[in-house]
Amino acid sequence: MPTKVILDVDTGTDDAVALMVAALSPDLDLVGATSVNGNTTIDNTTENTLRVFDWIGRPEVPVHRGCDRPLARTQAEQLNPARRIHGTLLDLPPASRGAALQPGHAVDWLIDTYLASDGDIVLCPVGPLTNVAMAIQKEPRILEAIPQIVIMGGAHDHGNSTPSAEFNIWLDPEAARIVVNCGRPIRMIPLDATHRALVSVDDAARLRALGTPAGEAAARFVLKRIDGYDATQPMPHRAGAAPVHDALAVCSIIDPSIVTTEFIPVDVEVNAELSVGRTVCDFRFRGGKPANVEFAIDADEPRFVAMLLEILGRTA
Amino acid sequence: MPTKVILDVDTGTDDAVALMVAALSPDLDLVGATSVNGNTTIDNTTENTLRVFDWIGRPEVPVHRGCDRPLARTQAEQLNPARRIHGTLLDLPPASRGAALQPGHAVDWLIDTYLASDGDIVLCPVGPLTNVAMAIQKEPRILEAIPQIVIMGGAHDHGNSTPSAEFNIWLDPEAARIVVNCGRPIRMIPLDATHRALVSVDDAARLRALGTPAGEAAARFVLKRIDGYDATQPMPHRAGAAPVHDALAVCSIIDPSIVTTEFIPVDVEVNAELSVGRTVCDFRFRGGKPANVEFAIDADEPRFVAMLLEILGRTA
Amino acid sequence: MPTKVILDVDTGTDDAVALMVAALSPDLDLVGATSVNGNTTIDNTTENTLRVFDWIGRPEVPVHRGCDRPLARTQAEQLNPARRIHGTLLDLPPASRGAALQPGHAVDWLIDTYLASDGDIVLCPVGPLTNVAMAIQKEPRILEAIPQIVIMGGAHDHGNSTPSAEFNIWLDPEAARIVVNCGRPIRMIPLDATHRALVSVDDAARLRALGTPAGEAAARFVLKRIDGYDATQPMPHRAGAAPVHDALAVCSIIDPSIVTTEFIPVDVEVNAELSVGRTVCDFRFRGGKPANVEFAIDADEPRFVAMLLEILGRTA
Amino acid sequence: MPTKVILDVDTGTDDAVALMVAALSPDLDLVGATSVNGNTTIDNTTENTLRVFDWIGRPEVPVHRGCDRPLARTQAEQLNPARRIHGTLLDLPPASRGAALQPGHAVDWLIDTYLASDGDIVLCPVGPLTNVAMAIQKEPRILEAIPQIVIMGGAHDHGNSTPSAEFNIWLDPEAARIVVNCGRPIRMIPLDATHRALVSVDDAARLRALGTPAGEAAARFVLKRIDGYDATQPMPHRAGAAPVHDALAVCSIIDPSIVTTEFIPVDVEVNAELSVGRTVCDFRFRGGKPANVEFAIDADEPRFVAMLLEILGRTA
Repeated sequence: MPTKVILDVDTGTDDAVALMVAALSPDLDLVGATSVNGNTTIDNTTENTLRVFDWIGRPEVPVHRGCDRPLARTQAEQLNPARRIHGTLLDLPPASRGAALQPGHAVDWLIDTYLASDGDIVLCPVGPLTNVAMAIQKEPRILEAIPQIVIMGGAHDHGNSTPSAEFNIWLDPEAARIVVNCGRPIRMIPLDATHRALVSVDDAARLRALGTPAGEAAARFVLKRIDGYDATQPMPHRAGAAPVHDALAVCSIIDPSIVTTEFIPVDVEVNAELSVGRTVCDFRFRGGKPANVEFAIDADEPRFVAMLLEILGRTA
Repeated sequence: MPTKVILDVDTGTDDAVALMVAALSPDLDLVGATSVNGNTTIDNTTENTLRVFDWIGRPEVPVHRGCDRPLARTQAEQLNPARRIHGTLLDLPPASRGAALQPGHAVDWLIDTYLASDGDIVLCPVGPLTNVAMAIQKEPRILEAIPQIVIMGGAHDHGNSTPSAEFNIWLDPEAARIVVNCGRPIRMIPLDATHRALVSVDDAARLRALGTPAGEAAARFVLKRIDGYDATQPMPHRAGAAPVHDALAVCSIIDPSIVTTEFIPVDVEVNAELSVGRTVCDFRFRGGKPANVEFAIDADEPRFVAMLLEILGRTA
Repeated sequence: MPTKVILDVDTGTDDAVALMVAALSPDLDLVGATSVNGNTTIDNTTENTLRVFDWIGRPEVPVHRGCDRPLARTQAEQLNPARRIHGTLLDLPPASRGAALQPGHAVDWLIDTYLASDGDIVLCPVGPLTNVAMAIQKEPRILEAIPQIVIMGGAHDHGNSTPSAEFNIWLDPEAARIVVNCGRPIRMIPLDATHRALVSVDDAARLRALGTPAGEAAARFVLKRIDGYDATQPMPHRAGAAPVHDALAVCSIIDPSIVTTEFIPVDVEVNAELSVGRTVCDFRFRGGKPANVEFAIDADEPRFVAMLLEILGRTA
Repeated sequence: MPTKVILDVDTGTDDAVALMVAALSPDLDLVGATSVNGNTTIDNTTENTLRVFDWIGRPEVPVHRGCDRPLARTQAEQLNPARRIHGTLLDLPPASRGAALQPGHAVDWLIDTYLASDGDIVLCPVGPLTNVAMAIQKEPRILEAIPQIVIMGGAHDHGNSTPSAEFNIWLDPEAARIVVNCGRPIRMIPLDATHRALVSVDDAARLRALGTPAGEAAARFVLKRIDGYDATQPMPHRAGAAPVHDALAVCSIIDPSIVTTEFIPVDVEVNAELSVGRTVCDFRFRGGKPANVEFAIDADEPRFVAMLLEILGRTA
């Protein structure tokens, strides 16, 4: 039986691939998607999400619009360089086959959906954790209905927004701190893992050759990502390849073994001069704060690419 | 025509007096009340609010339950000494005349009410600013519908929770920072003002002598407050008298001239070792951050007490 | 018998008046002066100190040059607006009567002098606390030889460098934290006191009329201060008058009753977003951190001015 | 011609090996050693330093006693678990062959020695950076006389005192920030490198078999270290081996190629909730703060061990 999942997305290019994987994999039952401010404005992340579902013929997946700013910070911090990689609107046509924004706020839809659920819907946030944290703070009873949270975010070895911090956590550190410490089982797919599973120009050609809408769109987004990474943060020794972070997180729900994790104590630095948004990982195994996160430190690139090719070759 | 007002309360004893003033003053039209975690748990602040409206014969005023924890902090910080003054449940009977909790979350009721309003409802939060900040972050469009926010909270000269911070701000500093910087007209009634308008044992006797339910309840709460203050934080040179903070905030809506304010730049310290929750006031008038708050620095005790006696002598 | 005293100064105009009071009062035995970075560079504060002693005929008072930057911060923070009031070099001729810088670092001279003393030399720092803190950290045994530290610095009601912080503490908060918590008897003369004891244009005329070098110099510096304050931070309701902070600190050694103090817990905020350098005063008298500072909250202006007129009418 | 070097040490077991390498290598000219608070109290680190020089027959190397507490923090932070590994006094006899503490403070000896030097003495601090930072702040002119600072300290991948911080930096972060940003060429040998060059039980046997005092002492200290590490922080997959951090730093002066470095921007986090004392390394090569540190990320264990065996087989 497929695993029920909700994606919380700030749809740029890698969220788009993640959404297509979630919507097309026979192993997942995509209950819905919620949009959040992040890679671009909430208007754009919402519109992009609708475009993706429409494009691949899944216009009926419910999409709810979420928060347009971080939980506890001002809007000024939204204007940041990470947006350059993702562009504004995805290179897909506006929805014409019926994808439409649902009424109601994403935070409320999350609360209502979880409270009405059988506790079997995995929550997969791949943007800033604003919606999820606000849902928890507004209605803490949803926690017991969330079986697992699979987060794309964080970084141990090195950040992207700052030397210490990954973008999703950095943009809303207070939200991330709440989610990471919420007490539910958490898997975190950080840059440490996503940078070990790159998708290449050749892979993009293979995706395009699939001849499906998802394959075509994925090829387009992957190539755009590679251009962005090569220009601003090239992968060491791997020109012509880029991480597709959010898709790895979704694939790890389908097959957890494509990432290698360590179960360790993780916290989020909120108040700091240089380290705001850092995911503070304790690999020392010395006691202290109990382990709370399955933190991915490696990923299986060939199997990840193979999964993308298999799933995105499908049609709705 | 009476001024429309919404009270956001963490009902303890002084919130109770504030609620009675708002519900009974002919100059105010109390649109509703929202409860929030603060002086005691959200269960208790909600129940206490219902008891007050029931007791004074205003059971129809809508009450909505709000957040049970701060916007961006963990619940651990709720357990604090300030709760000793307020006790757990107010010394009033459970509601029997119809006061009942409304369905729906306080945050959503605030959003819906303001979006449907004519922009003429003063918002008066007298507890931690969690509900108000979450409403702003969840639906920023409400801001343009809020004509004024009258906050009981903050302290310049000296704090109560810490040497630097007043309880309402200290309990949820991130929320306070959002509200204080939200761009709408703000009046703040801090300890600097409330400690200049004390209610005495003699005043309590006069309240009781009014013979009204509100007078009786106010007398009871004032005496309880005086006991608490005399025991833990006696007013200098004023044994037998105590501030009734929240009621002063409500009275200042009816008659702004009962407080003396300065229009100055105010911000909230969130990240600090010793000063978390401090309302940072700039009285230097040197430029820099523009003035954003009418900050009360004095209050007219005789007129405040006279207003209480006049209004609480009324019945619904 | 006169009280032995060492002044640690960042000589601008008010330090200059303080130095003259200390050097000319029959009630004080000025053991020496140490210069420190602050109002202006260490080169200037040192030169200014020599000019003052030379001008009033006390060229033999030993002057040692101290730190040119804060204890634990970078030099960037030295460049600040407070320097505008003090100008660069004092309007006094270069030393010609023998005042000369002593060899050796101020920190070492402080250490050696205290270790060789009978524990009877009051330490009076009226600039940033860099020299004093470094001496304590380098040779903690000096503490037991310091009978009292009388600090000009700090602010409770309002700051000058920031809304929260006074210049001397703000420029080197780590140093201030060390000194304030060093365990020795401390009197602090903050802005709260110095702004209550202003010196006016008329007073300056009286100083000049004394006909002494000290009176002439003091008149000149006071008028310069009044010009600066009137232009940038006028005293409320007191145009034509200015505080002479450091001189009040020295006068309070001669006659402690010219200031009113409260013995309270005081700490220094070092790590904060808005409150760096704030002297955090606990006036709540509720226990917690023990009282460590006699913090001045008021001053007797007429007696202060009378002391200046009496002492600065003297010659060496 | 041998390289002149000064070691600044908080002598525990690995400092002891470092001191013996520096004192016995024909490629180094050990100008002197300064002691500092760290692994144990200043009394013990000073005594231990004297014992080492006496034991190996180099009692004439000048030793100066330095700071007994961090630059800008209170003594409370000295009491920490890291001291358990090093014990109190080294297992060597008290000095009997003439090693004796020199008069004068380490900070002043550093200043005087550098100001009198030809700018050719490498500074190698392998404990908390208190002495070095205080020397810089007290007399910044020494900077131009320091050709290079080789620091044992810091950690990128994982800390030891906390998940984020290495002991030497963590104990005195303000001092470390000053030194790391001082503008002179800096090489940093962090845990990332020292954990890649372990010394094993077998190596200890070889050291002992050298038959020299240094070999015997090194064997003893290495075995003690291995016991400590195995008990509290075992090396992954390498029971029976331990890092000898400080000795690697000294060996890297003799032969820089035994470590692999990257020239990157490094800063020290001072104000943070979770990350105090973290060496913040920017491996992103994106511009921003210029590179200031040659940061070692790997070490050549066989060559390191071979160097120890070669050098510690010598006698004075």
